Amino acid sequence: MENTLDLIEDNLDPATLAAELTHEHVADIAEALNEQEPETASEVIALLPLEQAVDVMDQPELDLSAEFVAALPAERVLALLSGMSADRAATLFRELEEPARSNLLARLDPETAASLKKLLSYPSHSAGSIMTTEFVSVPSTWSVEHTLRHIRQVERTRETVYAIYVLDPEKRTLVQAVGLRRLISADLHAPVLSAARGSRPVTVSPFTDREEVARLISKYNLLAVPVVDEMGYVLGIVTFDDVIDAILEESTEDVQKFGGMEALDEPYMEIGFGKMIKKRAGWLCALFVSEMLTASAMQHFETELEKAIVLTLFIPLIMSSGGNSGSQATSLLIRALALREIRLGDWWRVALRELPTGLTLGAILGVVGVLRITAWQLLGFYDYGVHWPLIAATVGAALVGIVTFGSLSGSMLPFLLQRIGFDPASASAPFVATLVDVTGLVIYFSVAILILQGTLL
Amino acid sequence: MENTLDLIEDNLDPATLAAELTHEHVADIAEALNEQEPETASEVIALLPLEQAVDVMDQPELDLSAEFVAALPAERVLALLSGMSADRAATLFRELEEPARSNLLARLDPETAASLKKLLSYPSHSAGSIMTTEFVSVPSTWSVEHTLRHIRQVERTRETVYAIYVLDPEKRTLVQAVGLRRLISADLHAPVLSAARGSRPVTVSPFTDREEVARLISKYNLLAVPVVDEMGYVLGIVTFDDVIDAILEESTEDVQKFGGMEALDEPYMEIGFGKMIKKRAGWLCALFVSEMLTASAMQHFETELEKAIVLTLFIPLIMSSGGNSGSQATSLLIRALALREIRLGDWWRVALRELPTGLTLGAILGVVGVLRITAWQLLGFYDYGVHWPLIAATVGAALVGIVTFGSLSGSMLPFLLQRIGFDPASASAPFVATLVDVTGLVIYFSVAILILQGTLL
Repeated sequence: MENTLDLIEDNLDPATLAAELTHEHVADIAEALNEQEPETASEVIALLPLEQAVDVMDQPELDLSAEFVAALPAERVLALLSGMSADRAATLFRELEEPARSNLLARLDPETAASLKKLLSYPSHSAGSIMTTEFVSVPSTWSVEHTLRHIRQVERTRETVYAIYVLDPEKRTLVQAVGLRRLISADLHAPVLSAARGSRPVTVSPFTDREEVARLISKYNLLAVPVVDEMGYVLGIVTFDDVIDAILEESTEDVQKFGGMEALDEPYMEIGFGKMIKKRAGWLCALFVSEMLTASAMQHFETELEKAIVLTLFIPLIMSSGGNSGSQATSLLIRALALREIRLGDWWRVALRELPTGLTLGAILGVVGVLRITAWQLLGFYDYGVHWPLIAATVGAALVGIVTFGSLSGSMLPFLLQRIGFDPASASAPFVATLVDVTGLVIYFSVAILILQGTLL
Repeated sequence: MENTLDLIEDNLDPATLAAELTHEHVADIAEALNEQEPETASEVIALLPLEQAVDVMDQPELDLSAEFVAALPAERVLALLSGMSADRAATLFRELEEPARSNLLARLDPETAASLKKLLSYPSHSAGSIMTTEFVSVPSTWSVEHTLRHIRQVERTRETVYAIYVLDPEKRTLVQAVGLRRLISADLHAPVLSAARGSRPVTVSPFTDREEVARLISKYNLLAVPVVDEMGYVLGIVTFDDVIDAILEESTEDVQKFGGMEALDEPYMEIGFGKMIKKRAGWLCALFVSEMLTASAMQHFETELEKAIVLTLFIPLIMSSGGNSGSQATSLLIRALALREIRLGDWWRVALRELPTGLTLGAILGVVGVLRITAWQLLGFYDYGVHWPLIAATVGAALVGIVTFGSLSGSMLPFLLQRIGFDPASASAPFVATLVDVTGLVIYFSVAILILQGTLL
């Protein structure tokens, strides 16, 4: 792998690069091409032997950027498309622009064109958009021997042959899924269904979310899951490696969204400056404008601020505690909802858990806060004035209220988002913090008025 | 699946539950048992037919809690252990307490006991801790036919037979990995190596981190990756389904850590109240104590605060902007480092990208902030006093400085953590916000002194 990286630094011309790369593993070739300019990468693809070029194009890691696809000669694209797996061919097509897209579609054989059009029609992140149509299916009337002979013939053109889908000979609907490992141990003359397990096959619809597909593949330890339509006809299969790629991508998106920005669809070092600003500035401005409410809240309590300026000292401390406890609760609930540990209807159970949790956490921080103020006062580090015990009490009581409010609203936000049709993972740490900040200020000053009325206020 | 869930609500006795569950898919049985009290679950396992009980115990989803394992009769545990896959047996053993653990180990056959001890010796999250020792290996002197015959014999006792590991007949070191799909299409009388691809097999060490294993399996589209020691001897294999489980778990841990807490090792609804408080209170207190520095910073600028109380109105707004931009940058870098898009040595490249990004984002927010103050003043919503243009300038300039500082420190924090040997994913949104808050206050007041000197201050 060190070799491959060395090549990149040297910036060789495409011909030399192609000659050097041809001995590498296809995954390493894909990685090396990602590091090149799109034009260089497409020249290398044009120079590699066709079969190897197809294998490289089939790597989900290869970045099929619009520039890269546009730089490929049309003849080469046609040759590649007929060899590539259907899901990757669809990914390539998504990057093509008109009129190149329609021109190419017209020159493809009608069967490939029809199946491509179908794949392109499914929404992104759906099972339909990541499935492949190269799977093995046999009628249930075949014997084990006949099936094995068939597998040997088609092995090179199928993404996987380890799961075999047995169809009704008349209606061509899915009857059973059989594993190759059972098949090779079965009696050769027995019907293919003799190697099947008893239970009904696990299936998904083309519109099933890819995260749900991942959950099923993981739960049932499947190599692939068939995608079937309402009639029970198998449209394609989603394999475990597509799912691993999907989970890794999804988990990057989730962390970025939780960090308070739009998910990037490209690696950090490759995304352009303008695009990076766009993905970050949107949420940053939205949060900034919402956070302006804190300035309004502060203006509202101006009289109290002027009378007891000592209160301002603890504003950052108190506000951040609300945000932090909210961020903890949100992260917990985003994952619990994503992993289906908790359903939408469980919101009140969660609220009943977060209420005592928030109260306890708030009490802990409250005690620490009171101790801090007492210590500074008694040790002479700072003079909070004659009413310092009341100020300490204000900070302590406000912390209990704010941390409880933070935990509660942080845990309810993902439910609310899911309820109104958004991804619960759109709830971000900065979003929760902003939500909690304004209320935090109101809680703080209300507690202050209650406790300090007649003394400082 | 609805049926399984209905059963849970009814709280049937173990015998009825076992009788009902025996017809379900093992993954569904595991899910149903997770919902039961540990004692009920272990009674059900004791009542199920042994072969099915072993299959259920082999489900990575089944929660092997200490109470559940402790409630199983010793005889049953022995019978289960000899049937279970080695990696799950090790997981079960980890939950046992002394003296039960040593007693059981003494009663196991020496071979199983030795391989268990070995597995238990690897650190958690390592390839060694999730590998299984039930794989197919054959000497390179065997023919394709001999290998296939061997596979048919051992199929039922191996976690996967789709990857076959060909060993040196003398040294028993790994020579090649062969896929079953190539094997069944190969000439029966040819040597087994004729079905191998040319490239060297991808391997990992038992100490490789499971995230790295996932990355390799995903990159090379492998069903399993062999774990080899320094001598080239195959210790076990990690299969794709172990990796999917590991990635899902890892991504939950990452989101929870990013939310500013210790990762939970149990589902949200199952974890005890005390444990939940412990996992959350630690970080919350640490952040709270660090955030106390903001109170000290405010005390330091007390004179300025008293003279220009109008400055306090914007403190929450300005501080949160720094935290938000920092949280964005941290989320980006955590994932880029985890996916190996960026290496430790790239820190200066990242800094060179974040500097102009932070300046631009800060300028955008600065303009919005200045417009807000100007609008409120001119529309008569609030009177910031005669020097309001200077206050607007202070807020705008401070925002540029704070957002730039937030982006820079947020992006550098994951590098710093990795450099000193921590997981970069330990950097959390609240952590970054706390880091940025104190500096943010200092920046704000320094800018204020610079701009307002001689007028308000």
